Amino acid sequence: MSSKKKTAISPTREEDYSEWYQQVIKEADLAEHSPVRGCMVIKPWGYGIWENIQKVLDEKFKETGHQNAYFPLFIPVSFLEKEAKHVEGFAKECAVVTHHRLEKKGDKLVPAGELDEPLVIRPTSEMIIGEMFSKWVHSYRDLPILINQWANIVRWEMRTRMFLRTTEFLWQEGHTAHATKEEALEETLKMLDVYADFAKNYLAIPVIKGQKSEGEKFPGADTTYCIEAMMQDKKALQGGTSHFLGQNFSKSCNIKFADIDGKETFCWTSSWGVTTRLIGALIMVHSDDDGLILPPRISPTHIVILPVVHKEDVAGEVASYCENLKSELTKINYFGRPLQVFIDKREIRGGEKKWQWIKKGIPLILEVGPRDIKEEALFVTRRDDKSSKSVKRSVFLETLVEELDSIQSALLLRATKFRDENIKEIKTKEEFYAFFTPENKEKPEIHGGFAKAYFCMDAKIEEKLKEDLNVTVRCIPLDHEDKEGICIFSKNKAARQVIFAKAY
Amino acid sequence: MSSKKKTAISPTREEDYSEWYQQVIKEADLAEHSPVRGCMVIKPWGYGIWENIQKVLDEKFKETGHQNAYFPLFIPVSFLEKEAKHVEGFAKECAVVTHHRLEKKGDKLVPAGELDEPLVIRPTSEMIIGEMFSKWVHSYRDLPILINQWANIVRWEMRTRMFLRTTEFLWQEGHTAHATKEEALEETLKMLDVYADFAKNYLAIPVIKGQKSEGEKFPGADTTYCIEAMMQDKKALQGGTSHFLGQNFSKSCNIKFADIDGKETFCWTSSWGVTTRLIGALIMVHSDDDGLILPPRISPTHIVILPVVHKEDVAGEVASYCENLKSELTKINYFGRPLQVFIDKREIRGGEKKWQWIKKGIPLILEVGPRDIKEEALFVTRRDDKSSKSVKRSVFLETLVEELDSIQSALLLRATKFRDENIKEIKTKEEFYAFFTPENKEKPEIHGGFAKAYFCMDAKIEEKLKEDLNVTVRCIPLDHEDKEGICIFSKNKAARQVIFAKAY
Repeated sequence: MSSKKKTAISPTREEDYSEWYQQVIKEADLAEHSPVRGCMVIKPWGYGIWENIQKVLDEKFKETGHQNAYFPLFIPVSFLEKEAKHVEGFAKECAVVTHHRLEKKGDKLVPAGELDEPLVIRPTSEMIIGEMFSKWVHSYRDLPILINQWANIVRWEMRTRMFLRTTEFLWQEGHTAHATKEEALEETLKMLDVYADFAKNYLAIPVIKGQKSEGEKFPGADTTYCIEAMMQDKKALQGGTSHFLGQNFSKSCNIKFADIDGKETFCWTSSWGVTTRLIGALIMVHSDDDGLILPPRISPTHIVILPVVHKEDVAGEVASYCENLKSELTKINYFGRPLQVFIDKREIRGGEKKWQWIKKGIPLILEVGPRDIKEEALFVTRRDDKSSKSVKRSVFLETLVEELDSIQSALLLRATKFRDENIKEIKTKEEFYAFFTPENKEKPEIHGGFAKAYFCMDAKIEEKLKEDLNVTVRCIPLDHEDKEGICIFSKNKAARQVIFAKAY
Repeated sequence: MSSKKKTAISPTREEDYSEWYQQVIKEADLAEHSPVRGCMVIKPWGYGIWENIQKVLDEKFKETGHQNAYFPLFIPVSFLEKEAKHVEGFAKECAVVTHHRLEKKGDKLVPAGELDEPLVIRPTSEMIIGEMFSKWVHSYRDLPILINQWANIVRWEMRTRMFLRTTEFLWQEGHTAHATKEEALEETLKMLDVYADFAKNYLAIPVIKGQKSEGEKFPGADTTYCIEAMMQDKKALQGGTSHFLGQNFSKSCNIKFADIDGKETFCWTSSWGVTTRLIGALIMVHSDDDGLILPPRISPTHIVILPVVHKEDVAGEVASYCENLKSELTKINYFGRPLQVFIDKREIRGGEKKWQWIKKGIPLILEVGPRDIKEEALFVTRRDDKSSKSVKRSVFLETLVEELDSIQSALLLRATKFRDENIKEIKTKEEFYAFFTPENKEKPEIHGGFAKAYFCMDAKIEEKLKEDLNVTVRCIPLDHEDKEGICIFSKNKAARQVIFAKAY
């Protein structure tokens, strides 16, 4: 252990992946626990990532014809009751508002003004948005309705983990209503593509698009589609879902329209969402034992400039050089926004300062001292591979966009390679159990990765696998060969291979 | 009454201002009541205004050094209790979460899983953000902290009115901590200026910047500053507030820092916010008896193109001409964003379609038919004055930005004139009572406007005026002549004149 390389994050991924994750968040100053049970505070560096996620996705939603709106935080309990499966899925973990004021009782404040009907804080908004849709839709001319909402959501989770599972979280939820089944299904798959493209092109996270099994689908959906990504501990993380809701919610919310012949029919609806969980995925896919690594296209700031001043008499010259450099850099556009550049003028040790930025995962660090200025050069460090070199200022400016793109691609490539190396086609039940059984009992997190295997989709087998191995069907991939096979568990016919994994 | 001009909104402002307001919202499709008590649904046209408000203000906050973050929706009751005045101000109207799941009991779902400590949905976030600040601030080097949050807020209002007063509403809340009193006060006033400039330059609403009286200030603040605007019924609307919190919250939340000499001191804090209420102000300041009027700089869409097709055989030509026109228009930038242009292709009567857009308040309507195309002209309607004329396409394109600016200025000018005509300097108590007493008892809303009068700031007199006339001190204007006078009520010395009005 004494020969071990010193890392900025302790423990390392290998030593304790779960604790490493918490430490990366802490050292990058992304978020922290709040004094409210299960709720976190998203700090500026973390929220900056969410703002960029919002900006890009919001544009894509608008380009695909959606409009934003806002619906109430509260859902009357009677609304939830309308859809049996839906309520079953959410009633067990929701915040319930029962009173509308506080009253002094001795020195304590106690709830007063009991409500006639309790309200639930939205765990998702199908029921309240469906209720409004039922008022908005009368004729086929009112369709489709294409709405999105950016909002906070509450699900009372017992075990929470920052970004991945918190009682309150931020998300967007799209809700649409259509005249035909085909159109609603097309919308569902279109938005799945938007998510998959965004994950790949902005977050540098390769995902597998697929369909959920019956056991894993959204309560009330006909079909749930998802994007699944592999983390560095080879577990799966569901990065987004798109639900084809059939006529289930239009029936429970009474969303009807008169078609072109005047005949009344129920609408076909969809809903789809991604959450602040994506930030958890971002952390776990790219970061290393020195902290966070951010893809340039989503990083709140692209470049930090560190003035290097050893003698007071050069401070002024270095400072103005840095300001000038910054203003030149911010004129450059990168992926739809001006380059974000920050000069870190804090009076702390240079080494410490640089390491703070490495831990924050900023794509490029520029160190500028009197010698660099004299040589018209910059000392450039890339966060992704931690390579450093002195580069002529003019060359740096000229090649900057390519440099950022090269970081972006390198991250995507690394993540894709890692994932593909850890997907294995499994042929027998024995092999399957071995794949998911840790060799070292003290490291239960170490296992094979994603298993691809023929499966007959029997829910009982799925339950048993979850019990035995904590493994679930992550998805039935959409891009699969249509080749029948034999289920490795039941020996029955299986229409196709599915992806199994342990999951967050 | 039979000779009365037909208006698109009924009743008119004169007939029933309050109902007129509701009808403008309905006909412009801005928002509607939800089935959840006191909560509204903000529809795309209304939410589009909020998105633009967010976009502009968010930029201004960032330019002035603030960063966004996100804090929990829930506040433990014990946190609220820490600041006596604060809890007094908010305990009477807050949503209280007491349970964390629902359980079947017969066919009903009832709250279950009672919480050890009830949680309040944030009515404002001083206490939870203060708690976090107390962890983040150690030394003077950590200061200032300049944070903003975009969030939803709940205050259990008994009488609600769309945009003006709803149980849940959207807002931004800035929270800052500083090393000195001067710095915190400077911040408080700087953000008040940001609000006033935004109201004037984007919403075309002239505001009076001022300080609140003791009775009207924020619970827990040392001083509350505000911007006050006059609606068309001559009532006041508080458009935003900026609070100098002194050391009140830093003491109750324990936000301490070691100064440069190592001495521990409490921070000085500020908070400031604007809400979706601004949309209510926008409606009430500019709209007329034909509906909403939107200033171009804040309108979700600047221009609607209405293809005029009387014969099927020209439909194709008109459609492609409109598309071409749109793509030319969207290349033009107006106040930091590309012009937003919409082609309304719906198959409804042309007249009805045009009136829908007039009621929605879109700045410019372009009608394009075969004759216009032949003449290379457009039939242009300005919403603010409802003037229409045929304009050569090339001239329209060349003068478009000026045309939009002229609408923007005309709205600001009209609102400023109206306000200034309805501010009166009042010299005696009798005159004051007459100013605020309706001549026609059946129209209690008709009164003089804003009264400017010398006042000794005696809280008891203020209370009496509220009781007698429903009039309050709106603010002590910041831009005032420092000329002493005699209070018109008590005949005591008064340091300056203040603004009185009935208010929303």
